[in-house]
Amino acid sequence: GVSGVTQPQDPKTRPWGGGCFPAVSPAAERLRYILGEEDEPPTPTLFTEMDTLQRDGDDMEWKESARWIKFEEKVEEGGERWSKPHVSTLSLHSLFELRTCLQTGTVLLDLDGYSLPQIIDDVIEKQIEDGLLKPELREKLSYVLLRKHRHQTKKPIHRSLADIGKSVSSSTGEPRGEILEPEASTKKKKREKPNFGSQSLPRPCLSQQLKNKFIKKIPKDAEASNVLVGEVEFLEKPFVAFVRLLQATMLGGVTEVPVPTRFLFILLGPAGKAKSYNEIGRAIATLMVDDLFSDVAYKARDREDLIAGIDEFLDEVIVLPPGEWDPNIRIEPPKKVPSAEKRKSVFSLNEVGQMNGAAGGAGAGGGGGGGGSDDGEMPEVHEIGEELAWTGRFCGGLYLDIKRKLPWFPSDFYEGFHIQSISAILFIYLGCITNAITFGGLLGDATDNYQGVMESFLGTAMAGSMFCLFAGQPLIILSSTGPILIFEKLLFDFSKGNGIDYMEFRLWIGLHSALQCLILVATDASFIIKYITRFTEEGFSTLISFIFIYDAIKKMIGAFKYYPINSDFKPDYVTMYKCECVAPDPANATSFDAPAPVAPNTTNVSLSNALNLTALDWTQLSKKECLKYGGSLVGKSCKFVPDLALMSFILFFGTYSMTLTLKKFKFSRYFPTKVRAFIADFSNVFSILLFCAVDACFGLDTPKLHIPSIIKPTRVDRGWFVFPFGKNPWWVYLASALPALLVTILIFMDQQITAVIVNRKEHKLRKAAGYHLDLFWVGILMAVCSFMGLPWYVAATVISIAHIDSLKMETETSAPGEQPQFLGVREQRVTGIIVFVLTGISVFLAPILKYIPMPVLYGVFLYMGVASLNGIQFWDRCKLFLMPAKHQPDYVFLRHVPLRRIHLFTLVQIVCLAVLWILKSTVAAIIFPVMILALILVRRLLDFVFSQHDLAWIDNIIPEKEKKKEDDKKKKKKGNKGDSSSDEEVGVGSPGPPKFREHLWEYQFL
Amino acid sequence: GVSGVTQPQDPKTRPWGGGCFPAVSPAAERLRYILGEEDEPPTPTLFTEMDTLQRDGDDMEWKESARWIKFEEKVEEGGERWSKPHVSTLSLHSLFELRTCLQTGTVLLDLDGYSLPQIIDDVIEKQIEDGLLKPELREKLSYVLLRKHRHQTKKPIHRSLADIGKSVSSSTGEPRGEILEPEASTKKKKREKPNFGSQSLPRPCLSQQLKNKFIKKIPKDAEASNVLVGEVEFLEKPFVAFVRLLQATMLGGVTEVPVPTRFLFILLGPAGKAKSYNEIGRAIATLMVDDLFSDVAYKARDREDLIAGIDEFLDEVIVLPPGEWDPNIRIEPPKKVPSAEKRKSVFSLNEVGQMNGAAGGAGAGGGGGGGGSDDGEMPEVHEIGEELAWTGRFCGGLYLDIKRKLPWFPSDFYEGFHIQSISAILFIYLGCITNAITFGGLLGDATDNYQGVMESFLGTAMAGSMFCLFAGQPLIILSSTGPILIFEKLLFDFSKGNGIDYMEFRLWIGLHSALQCLILVATDASFIIKYITRFTEEGFSTLISFIFIYDAIKKMIGAFKYYPINSDFKPDYVTMYKCECVAPDPANATSFDAPAPVAPNTTNVSLSNALNLTALDWTQLSKKECLKYGGSLVGKSCKFVPDLALMSFILFFGTYSMTLTLKKFKFSRYFPTKVRAFIADFSNVFSILLFCAVDACFGLDTPKLHIPSIIKPTRVDRGWFVFPFGKNPWWVYLASALPALLVTILIFMDQQITAVIVNRKEHKLRKAAGYHLDLFWVGILMAVCSFMGLPWYVAATVISIAHIDSLKMETETSAPGEQPQFLGVREQRVTGIIVFVLTGISVFLAPILKYIPMPVLYGVFLYMGVASLNGIQFWDRCKLFLMPAKHQPDYVFLRHVPLRRIHLFTLVQIVCLAVLWILKSTVAAIIFPVMILALILVRRLLDFVFSQHDLAWIDNIIPEKEKKKEDDKKKKKKGNKGDSSSDEEVGVGSPGPPKFREHLWEYQFL
Repeated sequence: GVSGVTQPQDPKTRPWGGGCFPAVSPAAERLRYILGEEDEPPTPTLFTEMDTLQRDGDDMEWKESARWIKFEEKVEEGGERWSKPHVSTLSLHSLFELRTCLQTGTVLLDLDGYSLPQIIDDVIEKQIEDGLLKPELREKLSYVLLRKHRHQTKKPIHRSLADIGKSVSSSTGEPRGEILEPEASTKKKKREKPNFGSQSLPRPCLSQQLKNKFIKKIPKDAEASNVLVGEVEFLEKPFVAFVRLLQATMLGGVTEVPVPTRFLFILLGPAGKAKSYNEIGRAIATLMVDDLFSDVAYKARDREDLIAGIDEFLDEVIVLPPGEWDPNIRIEPPKKVPSAEKRKSVFSLNEVGQMNGAAGGAGAGGGGGGGGSDDGEMPEVHEIGEELAWTGRFCGGLYLDIKRKLPWFPSDFYEGFHIQSISAILFIYLGCITNAITFGGLLGDATDNYQGVMESFLGTAMAGSMFCLFAGQPLIILSSTGPILIFEKLLFDFSKGNGIDYMEFRLWIGLHSALQCLILVATDASFIIKYITRFTEEGFSTLISFIFIYDAIKKMIGAFKYYPINSDFKPDYVTMYKCECVAPDPANATSFDAPAPVAPNTTNVSLSNALNLTALDWTQLSKKECLKYGGSLVGKSCKFVPDLALMSFILFFGTYSMTLTLKKFKFSRYFPTKVRAFIADFSNVFSILLFCAVDACFGLDTPKLHIPSIIKPTRVDRGWFVFPFGKNPWWVYLASALPALLVTILIFMDQQITAVIVNRKEHKLRKAAGYHLDLFWVGILMAVCSFMGLPWYVAATVISIAHIDSLKMETETSAPGEQPQFLGVREQRVTGIIVFVLTGISVFLAPILKYIPMPVLYGVFLYMGVASLNGIQFWDRCKLFLMPAKHQPDYVFLRHVPLRRIHLFTLVQIVCLAVLWILKSTVAAIIFPVMILALILVRRLLDFVFSQHDLAWIDNIIPEKEKKKEDDKKKKKKGNKGDSSSDEEVGVGSPGPPKFREHLWEYQFL
Repeated sequence: GVSGVTQPQDPKTRPWGGGCFPAVSPAAERLRYILGEEDEPPTPTLFTEMDTLQRDGDDMEWKESARWIKFEEKVEEGGERWSKPHVSTLSLHSLFELRTCLQTGTVLLDLDGYSLPQIIDDVIEKQIEDGLLKPELREKLSYVLLRKHRHQTKKPIHRSLADIGKSVSSSTGEPRGEILEPEASTKKKKREKPNFGSQSLPRPCLSQQLKNKFIKKIPKDAEASNVLVGEVEFLEKPFVAFVRLLQATMLGGVTEVPVPTRFLFILLGPAGKAKSYNEIGRAIATLMVDDLFSDVAYKARDREDLIAGIDEFLDEVIVLPPGEWDPNIRIEPPKKVPSAEKRKSVFSLNEVGQMNGAAGGAGAGGGGGGGGSDDGEMPEVHEIGEELAWTGRFCGGLYLDIKRKLPWFPSDFYEGFHIQSISAILFIYLGCITNAITFGGLLGDATDNYQGVMESFLGTAMAGSMFCLFAGQPLIILSSTGPILIFEKLLFDFSKGNGIDYMEFRLWIGLHSALQCLILVATDASFIIKYITRFTEEGFSTLISFIFIYDAIKKMIGAFKYYPINSDFKPDYVTMYKCECVAPDPANATSFDAPAPVAPNTTNVSLSNALNLTALDWTQLSKKECLKYGGSLVGKSCKFVPDLALMSFILFFGTYSMTLTLKKFKFSRYFPTKVRAFIADFSNVFSILLFCAVDACFGLDTPKLHIPSIIKPTRVDRGWFVFPFGKNPWWVYLASALPALLVTILIFMDQQITAVIVNRKEHKLRKAAGYHLDLFWVGILMAVCSFMGLPWYVAATVISIAHIDSLKMETETSAPGEQPQFLGVREQRVTGIIVFVLTGISVFLAPILKYIPMPVLYGVFLYMGVASLNGIQFWDRCKLFLMPAKHQPDYVFLRHVPLRRIHLFTLVQIVCLAVLWILKSTVAAIIFPVMILALILVRRLLDFVFSQHDLAWIDNIIPEKEKKKEDDKKKKKKGNKGDSSSDEEVGVGSPGPPKFREHLWEYQFL
């Protein structure tokens, strides 16, 4: 076993060998001393390259065999390529051997070296001085150490193909190594052979170094550490040297990239143990890129500090049992690694006192009362942020919002200019106009065209662009929403039934509501949003997502009703299918004459013949004309429309699944990362274009996006300004305050819940939220819209989420193997403004937009709805119902709350949503916002059913991914409290939180 | 660091401390001694349960906290559930501490214990004897150790819901632990409190144990090891005991399942270090389930043997650096772990000599000649197996085939009765009849109905069932193939053109070809198949797959031509679309009278009116009738068929993608594994049924599967027997030997390449192949078919692969976390026979089959084609073109062959396939089989372009997944040769192959 190699110090000689409760181990003590000072500048990142000595015919050379930035990349000799970055799996042996190497070898710290030959001379001199090396080996050793370095570089493919001819001749038996080398340098090296010493270092390497694109992956301030290992025949015992240079120095072609070298580790040993040397080389290389050890290496005062660093490293290593893991598996880099700061903080001088103080709390006994161990662990508190604090001053919140947002205002513009914005603009634009058309059409029906598609477009453009320009959270997209639509419908019917002028009545309601909104702003009333928990928030957004999905599918099914399929059609009996316009009975003909002049703008033929019905050529009339003139349609094919329904379905489903597929393409193996990211970012645009093209190819008369092409009110008898007085009795002006209250609640809930969702912590927004400012503008815009007779606008949840999703940023360059990190959202006003400006000028884009089939847009709607369900914990919990416990993902709440409690909670939510859904489908939809308030009440009641512990885990504002991390962080901190038997996830095999390690030190059986 | 805990023995006191080249370490020596005897029965599998002492109010109890069969499952306190099985990640500390524990604690081996109280008494007695424990603690300790054991069991969901009411009351502040306990036992325990000693062990546990379904996961012969850890206040130093019982004994409720206990590890220590004790408990538990250590534990003679076991374990552990891995991540069990045998073999006495002998070979120097290190590594040799050995005797191969297959004959039947067979039968049946219909139709066209759909059905049924009943490889499915179709077409045209009777000529060709096949069988000529490499084999099967995919898509596109879409249709102008049958000019009418009697079986109306054309009501005629009687179709809608094309597309693409999705469903998280496996196995059936239902819902007249419903030859002027003489001149009988030769080559190549693919090693077939026997039956059936005038049949590659895929077996039960292993294919004759019997009686199934739309079947075809591309290395290599190097999967050949060489090889294959494809599309298709022979030639030429090393890796019969394993195995073996600097994949951090470890032992710097 391990005992076979030289062990670290004999325990008996240690001062704390059998002592009780020493504060820290000597290794930790040493490290604390050298790492303790916090004010020092951080040490540079280390790039480590390992070269092994290879025999190249009679000569030798150093061949790069692996490299590390954070993870290991290995040269695959046969494949002539770099392996994928992977976690370095080491053997315990090599680590112990390395420790011995550093104990016995030469350690030169802060050597003043300017070139490799000089450094090597110094090292050899030191070894001879110390009696570790026979002086007669000096020349040989120096020769070996100064051999040329050959790096693994990517070869351009055309060069590679040129090699084919060459390799044919050498394919039969010769060593293939020849092919690997750049021809020029091979020859050069041959000539250099007789030269010993510094001349043999190939200087031209620098140009090759500079060409190496790998440099992009290395941070600018990085320094290199070079590990050289190999076996030579002339040595009888290993030659080991660890060198730290006083100044990082470029050592010619030693490193594959032009990064100055700071550390040098040399291990040359007698022949026969190349494998072992290799492993030791990998061990030191892995150590050099370890955050903690590299700090130690930079600050070490002597050999013992380095040894202490290794001991500390060993103390933290994770051990996998040989029977449960195949060492040949290369472990993919994890999504997240423990941060260096956390690991280093153990050694921070500031924390020593704290740690000792906490020691008393340790040992609170093995599990006080079964399960009690968990109760201490609570996730981070539900936090909304300072934006919602109640200031108690008039307009205090609004003032703070403006103060917070104003400094960001310029950056809100220049940060918007990015390629990603284009995709976001197109995506959201299409969403917005689809919404505008849909709601416009419905509003037109509901209000007898007092508000129609034209009003919807203008209103969206005006309100949206104003909001994006001035509001607190420009990522929010304004839109008409369902409840408002229903309210308008009821209002119109009421006005009509009671002889009240609708437009004027509506204006007053809008003005009252706007005033109420401003009062809410002035009194900081938005702070009550704080009491909306994840339960309410997710319930609301799930409901809105479902409505989106439901509407998209409903519209699709509508196509099948609108274009009925003739399922009895037999191709052979095509002769039986016709639809003829049959002239009406002449006796009744005159009665149909009346409606004719209403809209006689179809064809000239019909116009001229309108008065002379009997003279009409009935067979030449279209379906509409025929019915208009009172004809009847006779025939089997009259009520059927071929192909359109199925084509619509193909377009709808195709767009949806194509978008989904392209989004997932980001995680495929094909094409370089950037291409994939591009395809994923523009997935919706590609799908829309593709299916527009498909539609154009077939040339079928599928329903298209038709936008009014002239700006004028939908109804001729209304203008662009509603005069507030004159049409209704005076009391109506006052009474309208009552319905206005309903509108205010509706607006307030819709707006602020969406704002909370948009401002979620998981989105990592830097430029704070502006709840009061948002509401202020919603109020102002409401008044403006009322005056202009345009629909009212409020934040649209699903489109806002889609907006954020399409603007997410990730780190671009990182060490090979490191996962790109989510950085946040491109917070700016440009995309929003452009979207709404485009919406405004869509009137002029009508000739282009008319090529977009509606089913494609419904497909986009469906995608938006489904995509916005992602990341909703409620939805994840719903899925748990279908998963057997052992297949469930490792959500953090599952570790802390019993599954049946989770299921119960989910069930309650489902029931609430079902009730809301039913309400929404009836006239009661108007009290929908009040029902959201009811949700908060239900949530309060749940306090009596669920423990606070459970609720803290399930019902929390921090979404899943974030929470896990937060949780870990917290755990690490909490470890200091040493709280008893809680063996939950703190460390399945982990080195344990800081305090724990201290306990382990105390733990002596002997 | 590590040095903080007591280290294993002081190196200076060791006999081999500074010595050179000792054969083995003492630890290994010890283990070799106890593990060396190979003839001993294997030790039982160990199930390990770890219980921790928990405080339950004033009382204490042992609470299960984790369990191991192979991987660790942890109790998640909060979630009240078992974690997913994961690899136990340990800390180095806990392992060292455990080592100390075993060194200082009580070790009782082969204790004769029959009950827990007695065992505990013995242990305590021993400790007191040894002076490790104060006698006054005996009672207290005994009380603690005999506390009740509470196990983590799954609670039925209805019980859980009942708890909700309870928890409401306790939700506010009380410890939730109460809820966890089964009420009954809680009360029981309370009553038992005053009892000390043995009585407090709850006997009723057994019933609970028996109810635990987890027992199914534990092998029958398993024994348990129980780990008990906890902290108690009254102890001042830890109480450690490791007990091995002489006989495995049931110890009441100690273990959660009724498995007898063999090992007991107890660690009780002073309060304050629960975490540390826990980790030590996990360490010993992990060790106990380690294959090697559990052997040691069973066979250990004393304490030192156990320590040696730990040392050996430490020697093999895999270490992850703390900065590159987050210890909180639970590592999923790997697909494959190193086998215990391999690890144990180091200690086998038999191998000692070998190892020492090989030691001389070690140290062959650090990398002789750059890249040369790889040349030694060659994948396993291309092997076909003994079936293709050339016997040199008359019918020697055939005889051996029969001899080999005969013993399996009965099992070929009873092994076929399995649920999986049903899915396979349905899937293959649908493939077969689609094939029969398609080829039947084409053959009918090509031969003027001398061979039509009826002949195709009967022939398929007869030949297929005979083959499956008697052939050597019943997994092969016979079918008509493209080349044969083309041959028949040419033959028919030639006969017609030269006045030769086609049927008689064909009979003679068939007879000659059958004879030639039999000669090939008699001379063992199939052995030449050995020279077909992966290059040829994969080229062939890729081509066939492409043909499948191409045909499926072609047929789909055909639907758009057959049912043209009227893309100019405007719904409003439905009145303009009609198709009328217009009567011909009376003058020409009579000339159309002639064809009328040929097929006048449409309607009675047309029959009676046939003679009196002028009296016909032309408007009432169908399209076909109209054209038949010479009418012309006039109108805009005549050439269009609505909906059918789009519907066909939806059915086609829907079936294909649904099958694909359901197949993938196996790897989703939803539903229990068995349900998922069922859905995946029957994916094709479900998709077919679903889309048949969709088709039925719409009721459209999509093309359906129409099967002749009466058995009679397609052409009335031929019978079921072709008489060999009389119609052609005598020389034709002889001359037909020449075209027969072509047919023979065609049959031989098609048949045997498919057989090679089916018999691939990766399919793990147990019942050997029968190449000669297969060919024998193909020849016989050829003769029979020729006499009956039925098409000729040969192995169909794609359907045979689909057959095998649908019969794959995997291990059903395994330790939690272990991946199911591919066991092989359900080799039997039942599925094949039933498929062909069904094909035969399809004639009677016509009323059911007519509901299956053809597009659905084409979708199945497409799926078959795509699915058969999976696992073809050539296809994997094609995909590499699109992947950047760093995203490429870790194929073993990529590690050994430069990417550009791989690309070149793939390009050559692509060019070859393109040439073959072009040939296939022309008349030259008849020499297609000869072209396959040309492929072999191309492959030979590649020997001059590629090195043998590269070819060995790329062009090899062992497919990907297998190879990697084989490779590792080989590596392990080769490690003994200690071959130089080859640091390739042998052990990135691995403990290294056996010999290597020996080297490490020698490696002493001091």
